[in-house]
Amino acid sequence: MRSLEVKNRTSVEDIKCLRLITAIKTPYLPDGRFDLEAYDDLVNTQIENGVEGIIVGGTTGEGQLMSWDEHIMLIGHTVNCFGGKIKVIGNTGSNSTREAIHASEQGFAVGMHAALHINPYYGKTSVSGIISHFSTVLSMGPTIIYNVPSRTGQDIPPSVIQTLARQSTNFAGVKECVGNDRVKLYTGNKIVVWSGNDDECHDSRWDFGATGVISVASNLIPGLMHELMFGGKNPNLVAKVMPLIHWLFKEPNPIGLNTALAQLGVIRPVFRLPYVPLPVEERQEFVRLVNQIGREHFIGDETLEVLDDSDFILVGRY
Amino acid sequence: MRSLEVKNRTSVEDIKCLRLITAIKTPYLPDGRFDLEAYDDLVNTQIENGVEGIIVGGTTGEGQLMSWDEHIMLIGHTVNCFGGKIKVIGNTGSNSTREAIHASEQGFAVGMHAALHINPYYGKTSVSGIISHFSTVLSMGPTIIYNVPSRTGQDIPPSVIQTLARQSTNFAGVKECVGNDRVKLYTGNKIVVWSGNDDECHDSRWDFGATGVISVASNLIPGLMHELMFGGKNPNLVAKVMPLIHWLFKEPNPIGLNTALAQLGVIRPVFRLPYVPLPVEERQEFVRLVNQIGREHFIGDETLEVLDDSDFILVGRY
Amino acid sequence: MRSLEVKNRTSVEDIKCLRLITAIKTPYLPDGRFDLEAYDDLVNTQIENGVEGIIVGGTTGEGQLMSWDEHIMLIGHTVNCFGGKIKVIGNTGSNSTREAIHASEQGFAVGMHAALHINPYYGKTSVSGIISHFSTVLSMGPTIIYNVPSRTGQDIPPSVIQTLARQSTNFAGVKECVGNDRVKLYTGNKIVVWSGNDDECHDSRWDFGATGVISVASNLIPGLMHELMFGGKNPNLVAKVMPLIHWLFKEPNPIGLNTALAQLGVIRPVFRLPYVPLPVEERQEFVRLVNQIGREHFIGDETLEVLDDSDFILVGRY
Amino acid sequence: MRSLEVKNRTSVEDIKCLRLITAIKTPYLPDGRFDLEAYDDLVNTQIENGVEGIIVGGTTGEGQLMSWDEHIMLIGHTVNCFGGKIKVIGNTGSNSTREAIHASEQGFAVGMHAALHINPYYGKTSVSGIISHFSTVLSMGPTIIYNVPSRTGQDIPPSVIQTLARQSTNFAGVKECVGNDRVKLYTGNKIVVWSGNDDECHDSRWDFGATGVISVASNLIPGLMHELMFGGKNPNLVAKVMPLIHWLFKEPNPIGLNTALAQLGVIRPVFRLPYVPLPVEERQEFVRLVNQIGREHFIGDETLEVLDDSDFILVGRY
Repeated sequence: MRSLEVKNRTSVEDIKCLRLITAIKTPYLPDGRFDLEAYDDLVNTQIENGVEGIIVGGTTGEGQLMSWDEHIMLIGHTVNCFGGKIKVIGNTGSNSTREAIHASEQGFAVGMHAALHINPYYGKTSVSGIISHFSTVLSMGPTIIYNVPSRTGQDIPPSVIQTLARQSTNFAGVKECVGNDRVKLYTGNKIVVWSGNDDECHDSRWDFGATGVISVASNLIPGLMHELMFGGKNPNLVAKVMPLIHWLFKEPNPIGLNTALAQLGVIRPVFRLPYVPLPVEERQEFVRLVNQIGREHFIGDETLEVLDDSDFILVGRY
Repeated sequence: MRSLEVKNRTSVEDIKCLRLITAIKTPYLPDGRFDLEAYDDLVNTQIENGVEGIIVGGTTGEGQLMSWDEHIMLIGHTVNCFGGKIKVIGNTGSNSTREAIHASEQGFAVGMHAALHINPYYGKTSVSGIISHFSTVLSMGPTIIYNVPSRTGQDIPPSVIQTLARQSTNFAGVKECVGNDRVKLYTGNKIVVWSGNDDECHDSRWDFGATGVISVASNLIPGLMHELMFGGKNPNLVAKVMPLIHWLFKEPNPIGLNTALAQLGVIRPVFRLPYVPLPVEERQEFVRLVNQIGREHFIGDETLEVLDDSDFILVGRY
Repeated sequence: MRSLEVKNRTSVEDIKCLRLITAIKTPYLPDGRFDLEAYDDLVNTQIENGVEGIIVGGTTGEGQLMSWDEHIMLIGHTVNCFGGKIKVIGNTGSNSTREAIHASEQGFAVGMHAALHINPYYGKTSVSGIISHFSTVLSMGPTIIYNVPSRTGQDIPPSVIQTLARQSTNFAGVKECVGNDRVKLYTGNKIVVWSGNDDECHDSRWDFGATGVISVASNLIPGLMHELMFGGKNPNLVAKVMPLIHWLFKEPNPIGLNTALAQLGVIRPVFRLPYVPLPVEERQEFVRLVNQIGREHFIGDETLEVLDDSDFILVGRY
Repeated sequence: MRSLEVKNRTSVEDIKCLRLITAIKTPYLPDGRFDLEAYDDLVNTQIENGVEGIIVGGTTGEGQLMSWDEHIMLIGHTVNCFGGKIKVIGNTGSNSTREAIHASEQGFAVGMHAALHINPYYGKTSVSGIISHFSTVLSMGPTIIYNVPSRTGQDIPPSVIQTLARQSTNFAGVKECVGNDRVKLYTGNKIVVWSGNDDECHDSRWDFGATGVISVASNLIPGLMHELMFGGKNPNLVAKVMPLIHWLFKEPNPIGLNTALAQLGVIRPVFRLPYVPLPVEERQEFVRLVNQIGREHFIGDETLEVLDDSDFILVGRY
């Protein structure tokens, strides 16, 4: 399944230079389907604030809770509406090689600019199996590899990354969550790295050679995250946003993000299970954090609310 | 699932004025997956010859042999690559209302300009059920209704069409296969009609008020079909192309079309079952017809071949 | 995908001798999912009244409105609960050869005793294509071929049936809806036939050599249909049930059946679109018909009700 | 979706007393589809050796590489062929609550005796979310909860298990991989535990109160594992099998198991990616281990082979 129409406009160099990429949230209607109107508003806000790329259906966007047809549809929709203004990176990774192949073929066919690929989580495999897995998809188009052992239960060893970097011109770089020593190891070898940790990304960028960040916090404060990546070293700004970042990751992401966006009034307070909102004390704490940092730095323009438990809709069938 | 981004650029009036729409063929790789490179060439050729719209995954495009995720992917791909140059009409109809709803939502989300909807074939339903079926999808965007009793086993009565035309501003018109009396009945009531029969479309257009045609033959001879729809009454041209059109429909469409395109060298000779190629005598006859009409009026530039039986690949699992 | 465990217990002869097979109704919960408790009651009632086989997910059972995973699950469920008492024939046919292959493999794997296969409706194909289609699935296990041109738009010619009967020992027979001349043609050639028309089945059985019937009416009056197939010629009984049979098919099946079962109180009044209930006058007529024939001949034991329009639930998303 | 037919024969007590459960391997044909004939042989061998239950589509059975329709089909097939002789426990867990609900409903509908449920791996969630997730499925039937932090990236805290044990009569127990201190904590509170670690299971059973084991090694040496669970304390036997168990888990399971079964000649040497066989030195080591323990204790009766790399088939599309 090849398409020269698509291939001709996708370049790995266009991906390698992106500094600020947002792992975009997927908002829902009360019956659990996508709320595309809210989604389009979120993406437009990202574009207006200088974000250069988005991950569609990442773990933040809850790709793991999507059927593949929903997921590919969302990638196609995003390309169709915003592909001229922002790079669209589809999370077409899977712990099943078959699914990763199928989703990546479809994602590139509907025009995504790059794929994000994870090593086989949960089922896991050998180092040799990891390389085989990634090799089946790297031929299709520009690809970012994602390493997050706290989710996958298995670190991708640097030897694997270096092998892939040598083998494929489609290898764009690594989204790395292991820490800045690892970042430095790669950037010292001219491998492009995006920090996968909002709390470390400033240092990754300015002290360890990372190209940028794939951020969760930029869903909320895209302008400040832009400043952090483009404005030079800025310890004061780091200190300002750090309490928010700590709050965001008190529970597994995107629980904090979902709770925050609902309170900002930019999405409906609908959660697909197994995600549930943060408790009311944390919701009150969020209001304090917003006021401290400044409402104007956050997306949306509605007055901030501490939602009641009864305001949230949790959906299991959708 | 709504998207103002998409809604704002889709207008029913843009659909109503199309004169030449091709029910585009879907070509395959030897393992049965889509051959997107060949597909893109087919669509580009259509655009170059003045075709104004295409039906993606119609019965001609073998939507009935696609999984829905393949089908939506193909719509998204087509919008992404060609949506600025040609109107993309997705055949998101089904005899299952659930599937028609889901596919139409997804099709519009990835940017299709209009949907084609069939009445519930095979399972069938009452007149009241037909109206309920179409009503669930008409709210989503510009829609063409397709009436082809020889396939569905059930005629859509004019009363149903007139009800839908009154009820919904998204109703664009009818693709009608019943004949020119029916065409006249609708056009007399200011309902837009496309002929669904290549052999009748010239008369439908020039004598019975049809806006145009949704054509199979235009896959092969887009320029001549354009002349037929735009160039004024032309009985000589009708006489010239009629033997080809009769040949095309000797067996249920798209058997003839698939056989012809393979012989023209523009697609691989791969058939998804239950379709099988026309026998060798008919393949020889096709060569004679092409030479008679003129190779230059047909798409492709390779020398015409009479393929052997062994050249064809029939796939059941894909 | 082979299983000797399953193959060893499935014999085509066990299928050929069945006289009374019911195309069983699939009942729904208010959200559109299967109501398995009501389903189990329906099947138990069939068994108690001497019905020997059931078609799971036929057009009567609305297989066309099921996803394949629902469909295979229902076959597996039926085998698991009732496979020792009644023959389970899965409608694993499709107009897509790929889907027919996949569903038939899965259906036999979960233990269905036979498959029902339709020719490719709507998409249609050539005679040669029809034979190719059936040939891909006949190797898997005992198979009944279903001919119903009023739904498919295409008659299966006798030459096709005779070819299949010669080619495959898995060919069990034909469910034929074209009429008794066709029945006679086949039975004269020792091909097993089940009538697919309740109004003709008595004559098919006693005058034209049919083995039995695949019945819709037996959902309602299994005991009387049993009498019709086993009790010898009985014109009085035919006359008694004929008004009910005519009522049942006033609109495309299973609209009448669904409406009747809801009024008998044995299923919830839930319709998956595009099916909608018969209007109130026909519902009143059904009460008259039941009283005329005798409530005791119908399944269920609740007092008969004329349901209001507002009692019915129509579901499009499920 | 309820079925009294199924509910009436499923009892949580029948599950709680099982001592030896095998996480059964799923064998494949060269094109990647299930090899049901080989599967049936594997299950029959388990039954003959006294194994009391099997997990269908666990991580060992590569449920993570199945589509859900394959997975449910395999559960239905197993129930249909072997449900009277062995308990069939379907791994209908998922990190998506929607998928866990849907799969569990379908699994119980086709007759599985119990479900195995994992906490949401990879995507993860809060403790409150984990409880919500399990609560949606516990109402459906007997359920074993599976805790394996090395795969999921997240330990299920004892408080969650204790909450579920109190809340639901369907809670059968825990498959626990964290170690024998955790086992003791649960068994001291009368919570049924199966060890999820072959290397610890003897001690779990005889020293820490575990009911039994959910074993990988029993795929190869069901008789010896039976002895380990039923024959009383036996340090000599532990010492005898330990080198094999260590070999089995040198790479993430089921890589070792798949390699071993292929060498024993009981499955075709087909791997679904991302799994790849152990290297030739480890395959040679396996031959030594078998000879040391005794070929007669292993399943199959073919002479053991060291397969060549070229003997293995790795499939990515299937």
